[in-house]
Amino acid sequence: MALSEVDTPALVLDLDVFEANLRTMQDWTRRHDIALRPHGKAHKCPEVALRQIALGARGICVQKVSEALPFVAAGVADVHISNEVVGEAKLALLAQLARRARVSVCVDHPENVAALSRAVAAQGTRVDVLVEIDVGHGRCGVASPTAALELARRVESLPGLRFAGIQAYHGSLQHRRGHAERAQACLESAARARQCAEVLHAHGYACPIITGGGTGSAEFDGPGDVYTELQAGSYAFMDVDYGANEWAGELKFGNSLFLLGTVMSTPTPDRVMLDVGLKSTTVECGLPKVHERDNLLYVAANDEHGIVRVAAGTAAPALGEKLRLVPSHVDPTFNLHDELVAVRGGVVEGVWPIAARGFSR
Amino acid sequence: MALSEVDTPALVLDLDVFEANLRTMQDWTRRHDIALRPHGKAHKCPEVALRQIALGARGICVQKVSEALPFVAAGVADVHISNEVVGEAKLALLAQLARRARVSVCVDHPENVAALSRAVAAQGTRVDVLVEIDVGHGRCGVASPTAALELARRVESLPGLRFAGIQAYHGSLQHRRGHAERAQACLESAARARQCAEVLHAHGYACPIITGGGTGSAEFDGPGDVYTELQAGSYAFMDVDYGANEWAGELKFGNSLFLLGTVMSTPTPDRVMLDVGLKSTTVECGLPKVHERDNLLYVAANDEHGIVRVAAGTAAPALGEKLRLVPSHVDPTFNLHDELVAVRGGVVEGVWPIAARGFSR
Repeated sequence: MALSEVDTPALVLDLDVFEANLRTMQDWTRRHDIALRPHGKAHKCPEVALRQIALGARGICVQKVSEALPFVAAGVADVHISNEVVGEAKLALLAQLARRARVSVCVDHPENVAALSRAVAAQGTRVDVLVEIDVGHGRCGVASPTAALELARRVESLPGLRFAGIQAYHGSLQHRRGHAERAQACLESAARARQCAEVLHAHGYACPIITGGGTGSAEFDGPGDVYTELQAGSYAFMDVDYGANEWAGELKFGNSLFLLGTVMSTPTPDRVMLDVGLKSTTVECGLPKVHERDNLLYVAANDEHGIVRVAAGTAAPALGEKLRLVPSHVDPTFNLHDELVAVRGGVVEGVWPIAARGFSR
Repeated sequence: MALSEVDTPALVLDLDVFEANLRTMQDWTRRHDIALRPHGKAHKCPEVALRQIALGARGICVQKVSEALPFVAAGVADVHISNEVVGEAKLALLAQLARRARVSVCVDHPENVAALSRAVAAQGTRVDVLVEIDVGHGRCGVASPTAALELARRVESLPGLRFAGIQAYHGSLQHRRGHAERAQACLESAARARQCAEVLHAHGYACPIITGGGTGSAEFDGPGDVYTELQAGSYAFMDVDYGANEWAGELKFGNSLFLLGTVMSTPTPDRVMLDVGLKSTTVECGLPKVHERDNLLYVAANDEHGIVRVAAGTAAPALGEKLRLVPSHVDPTFNLHDELVAVRGGVVEGVWPIAARGFSR
């Protein structure tokens, strides 16, 4: 089937660019001796994860326990839940999952460590535990090395748990636009992670894993000597938000992910309507962009309509014409779609289930 | 099962408030002799539609052809597709659907009318056709009564199509905040719809259906003598965005829809983290609000985290505590969830599939 025959809205993957992105990041991490653990929350698609692992990725991250299930079912053997897991139902699921894969999870609260231990003890399994530290994001994580040390002691004191290191992720610095400014922010985050690891080490708690980083910080985290693994996700796809970063270094990625839409109304010469709205794209990081059509500007997303402005004096696309959009934000966009249409040279090679779509528990 | 035992994130419906909202709107439309055709794109949930119809609604609207399928499968016999349908695959599906339900659809382009006729002729079915006119929204629809007349003629000239009237929907005026300002804007829209209907009528094209309106305009469209049916959707649930309108008239609705979340990190006295982020709520109309907890402010949505600020000097919720949020925008929020947990007095009465979730084709 040709891409032009695919019904819309559709989420489309350009396999040539996707595969080049995977190789670029894998080569970079190999060269800098840091493990790659791509984030499954970006794509929620086991087919993508299996390709990342086949190229050398250590395993994957997920953000929720239920999100891990389709990946493990597809054969992923090593999953890090890069988040705190709170509540008995979720902890029981996590403890069961540890029977089928190597599982690690984050903690930032002593009560949660105790609940986690009870859950894994009840299942007779074991999990690796990373203490999350706040390196500037202001989200989860303990604030001080002392607090991290207390949690590490607690982890080691309870059955079924093994202290494995720290998670030091700073989400908002991934999108600091300037290259030099981003580099500096990454250095500061890494310094906080290093300081914490040193305090833990001085008290007899080695940190074999220091995990964090993302697509925007990879070029700084990789060559540094702090992180042992990188959690990037968007690098495989790219979006408008990451495209707005300054990419002045060696590491660069191409747009492989697109929203295919159909022009379904052409009411005026300066305005056409696409069938791609808020139920096919999210807009928290801005609007999607029309790909390689400089005279067309996606100016508003309604529930099921995208309003596209046509530059004065240029030809409007025809009724029924299909346009490609670059999504503004990879992760929540995947979460709106059930299938990823994998395309090479304009021909559909496969339709991959986004099997963890909606798995937010 | 008690609501407190429901795992999170969950989309929760307070049945008492929901049923009161349904009755309020049904009574209002009955009193003002206008048919109610609630919009299924708001909730995508057949269980909701069946309750609306049982109370007296004429049928439902949907925005996409595929979205109609779960409703028709559940027994909804009258569906208006309140949108243009472009593309052979979609038109074929629409033509097939007309075998199982009374189906109407909008047009705003002569080529589309011809393609629609070919599709229904190929299936041997018939559909009612409404000419969409732009009454100020600046989205789809023809701009003038003359253009509407030309399309009506075209519709009547082609096999399988029956001209049934006009659609005159103005989305953005639904959220004009001031009551008087909204009233005025509704009058202007309705005047444009009336003018168009008069021109059509003068040329022998009666408009048995003049459809449009929404939750924000219902109190003005109902008592007017222009619209014959009302397409409101959000009235059954309400959200932060509609809550910000001035409701100075007789017609008022309560919040029946909530996002249930769990506190999964309590890093500082002034900040807690909820497990409700961008994959459980959308933010194009602002952030969700913590319900009936005035000291808590949801300040940022990350992919799977909601950052909640705790007012100085007040007690933070505990780790594991569950909080209810009022969603900011009904329609795209439903589209993120597979199930609606229906609750009465803190007890779960049912779990309703959001069966048309993701059906955007």
